[in-house]
Amino acid sequence: MFRHARRLAPFTASVAAFREGRDTPRAFLERCIETIETREGELKAFVVLDLDGARAAADASTKRYRDGRPLSPIDGCPVGVKDIIETADMPTQMNSPVYAGWRPGRDAACVRALRLGGAVVLGKTVTTEFAIGRSGPTLNPLDPSRTPGGSSSGSAAAVGAGMASVALGSQTNGSTIRPASYCGIHGFKPTLGALPTGGMHPLSTTLDHLGVLGASLADVWAVARQMADVGGTPGSPGLPGRGHELPAAVPPKRLVRLYTKGWQEAELDDATRAAFEEVAGRLRAAGVEIVDRSTDRELADLEALLDEHVDTSADILAYEMRWPYAEYVERHGEALGPRIRGLVARAAEITQDDYRRLLDVRRRVQAKVMELADRADGFVTLAASGPAPRGLDFTGSRTFLIYWSWLGFPCFSLPLMQVEGLPVGLQLMGYAHADDALAARAVWIENAAIAPPAAS
Amino acid sequence: MFRHARRLAPFTASVAAFREGRDTPRAFLERCIETIETREGELKAFVVLDLDGARAAADASTKRYRDGRPLSPIDGCPVGVKDIIETADMPTQMNSPVYAGWRPGRDAACVRALRLGGAVVLGKTVTTEFAIGRSGPTLNPLDPSRTPGGSSSGSAAAVGAGMASVALGSQTNGSTIRPASYCGIHGFKPTLGALPTGGMHPLSTTLDHLGVLGASLADVWAVARQMADVGGTPGSPGLPGRGHELPAAVPPKRLVRLYTKGWQEAELDDATRAAFEEVAGRLRAAGVEIVDRSTDRELADLEALLDEHVDTSADILAYEMRWPYAEYVERHGEALGPRIRGLVARAAEITQDDYRRLLDVRRRVQAKVMELADRADGFVTLAASGPAPRGLDFTGSRTFLIYWSWLGFPCFSLPLMQVEGLPVGLQLMGYAHADDALAARAVWIENAAIAPPAAS
Repeated sequence: MFRHARRLAPFTASVAAFREGRDTPRAFLERCIETIETREGELKAFVVLDLDGARAAADASTKRYRDGRPLSPIDGCPVGVKDIIETADMPTQMNSPVYAGWRPGRDAACVRALRLGGAVVLGKTVTTEFAIGRSGPTLNPLDPSRTPGGSSSGSAAAVGAGMASVALGSQTNGSTIRPASYCGIHGFKPTLGALPTGGMHPLSTTLDHLGVLGASLADVWAVARQMADVGGTPGSPGLPGRGHELPAAVPPKRLVRLYTKGWQEAELDDATRAAFEEVAGRLRAAGVEIVDRSTDRELADLEALLDEHVDTSADILAYEMRWPYAEYVERHGEALGPRIRGLVARAAEITQDDYRRLLDVRRRVQAKVMELADRADGFVTLAASGPAPRGLDFTGSRTFLIYWSWLGFPCFSLPLMQVEGLPVGLQLMGYAHADDALAARAVWIENAAIAPPAAS
Repeated sequence: MFRHARRLAPFTASVAAFREGRDTPRAFLERCIETIETREGELKAFVVLDLDGARAAADASTKRYRDGRPLSPIDGCPVGVKDIIETADMPTQMNSPVYAGWRPGRDAACVRALRLGGAVVLGKTVTTEFAIGRSGPTLNPLDPSRTPGGSSSGSAAAVGAGMASVALGSQTNGSTIRPASYCGIHGFKPTLGALPTGGMHPLSTTLDHLGVLGASLADVWAVARQMADVGGTPGSPGLPGRGHELPAAVPPKRLVRLYTKGWQEAELDDATRAAFEEVAGRLRAAGVEIVDRSTDRELADLEALLDEHVDTSADILAYEMRWPYAEYVERHGEALGPRIRGLVARAAEITQDDYRRLLDVRRRVQAKVMELADRADGFVTLAASGPAPRGLDFTGSRTFLIYWSWLGFPCFSLPLMQVEGLPVGLQLMGYAHADDALAARAVWIENAAIAPPAAS
């Protein structure tokens, strides 16, 4: 597990203390606020902070615990909300002048679910422009000379610095898993549609996932389950599982190690490779069979298929961005950043027939991956090509992340590696609509990777 | 074909005259405005009219024809836009105080597509509250003592009175096909997602269709194809077909006549039954085999399945309305009408497991219907249980309409019947993603039903 001189704010671990009166959500919040006062000035994780509102919500939560009637297992949990997600009481600005000061007058479905569960909304966190364009001002809490990753930059930094227990993110290419990896926290991108995306500004609807970043796996899961309580995105069966508690640990019998393109990237250094081998070694020592393309023809074929087609996700993205981004560009010109303008220009070259083929290809690859479900319990690879890059302009490579974003299948980033004193996540990837089964493996893997291998 | 003492404003029939300089879009618009001046005061089809904007757009269009460079085959077409669909230059108010005066600052995807094609946006048409609640003030242009139908009330009345050639509607239960039937015009509800729904306020995403109402089948198809040019709803292959012209007529070999629940409704009178039989007789005389449950066991089973499960669409609707309607009700109380409050209350009783079953049932029924695709070219039934009811409170029965809304498959209302001097539509229903094949049958059916049967 990544360790660093800092204080995270895992929430669910404190719930027993709230119930027993040894601690209160208000006191918990004040510890977060103390961190905010120390660090936010430098880190710039938040666009808007509403500490008065948060204190009022934490007081109400404190009273509910005192009365023995918390609304949910995340009652009192301090959360940050990525600023592409609508909030009734704070502006929602997409890090774009197009939405400067915009107040939608309602909460997004996910925010509504959190409030129904008693969560304490601290504020809106910095996103890159519309979750894909120009970077924000947020610094990495573990090394302020580095990016926190993006596009959920502020969410990752807020959790990574201990200013919030959990923060909402989104992932279209890699925007939850990558910043989780860079900030040494837990990230969860569920199956497409498993969480409700109503009120989240769209980028590319068949790639846009609501994601969760948190100080512990238990926090991430509890918040995801709470949001799932208002239902997933319409048409989706929603997030599987019941209640808010992490599934019990289930040892994976067999995991597929993916050697996709990212492993050939120039920036992938030996230290990162070695860190991954070390974790893989621990898992093997704990009894997990790890298979890969070198010894399995079917896996080699699947990887070739993934690598051959994954870049088509960029065309899906561009095509689906035609509305409303083409219009934004027309109306607002260079108020939109060059990446967004580039994607809109690219979209104009893609025909409807092209798009149909892109959807067909994805369906075919999804089916191929699903065929492995009875042969392997999941897939592992890096959650990023190394520690966070220096500087703020580049929020990091997405090469390890686009596969599962493109497929719409669930994945976690687990902060299990350390490279040059900085965190790198292990990416654990699963099968559509089996998020709970994947979470059970994540619990086990985290234990196995931290604990010394058992002498079995 | 329904005939009445009135002037419709079919557009595409005038395009040749525009090209040849015998008519202009501005002159066409002025004829519509003349009708608006005569009738709108009584009918109340529009919430907002922008005649200055329309005249400027029509002048620009006129110039493009003069220069020989119209933007599309609907360049200059006067359209009304249902007021749940976002427009950059006019407020979008959902017929609800919650959105009074709201200006989204952008065009919905469909409106953008129309403007890119040179369409002339006349104004926003009256919707029932959020397309499902309290009725608006609009009257039926053929008999002002009757409802125009809903929820696309203003769109149907505007086209039915000849104030616009085409108007955009939506259909979640029956909101396009029903008012088309009552107002004696053409209605088209395509396959779910075939048209772009971005910027249309959601009611129930897996039931919400963008629909088109128009003065002719050619107008409806041309406008639908133009909207499809910006792509369908993300994830959908979009509307099949190429170009804007109606597909050439294709005679259906065999049609299934559906005898679903509506035929047992008390309000279904003998005159409506007789009108349907007369049309069916003409089709038979023209060589179409019409089959039904009485002689075909498979059809009997399918109808039983449809009738057994179709009412589950109400639960899908309620469940998917949880966001944002539960929040609207909480924030705004009785500013929301009783039907919406009732659906929100109902939603609270439906679990995620229930919803998963609802989705599974629908998938099963969809597959059963699709199995018929190589045995029959489509389905026919009534588009409404009779002429428009008297009064404005009740926008009409949806019993004939929920089936194809629930399935998400395409259908047309063709104004082929007349009962007590008022129009009733023939509903022609087809298979998913085969909208163009269905349109080709609609063209043929319309010709066959109007023309005296050929002596073959």
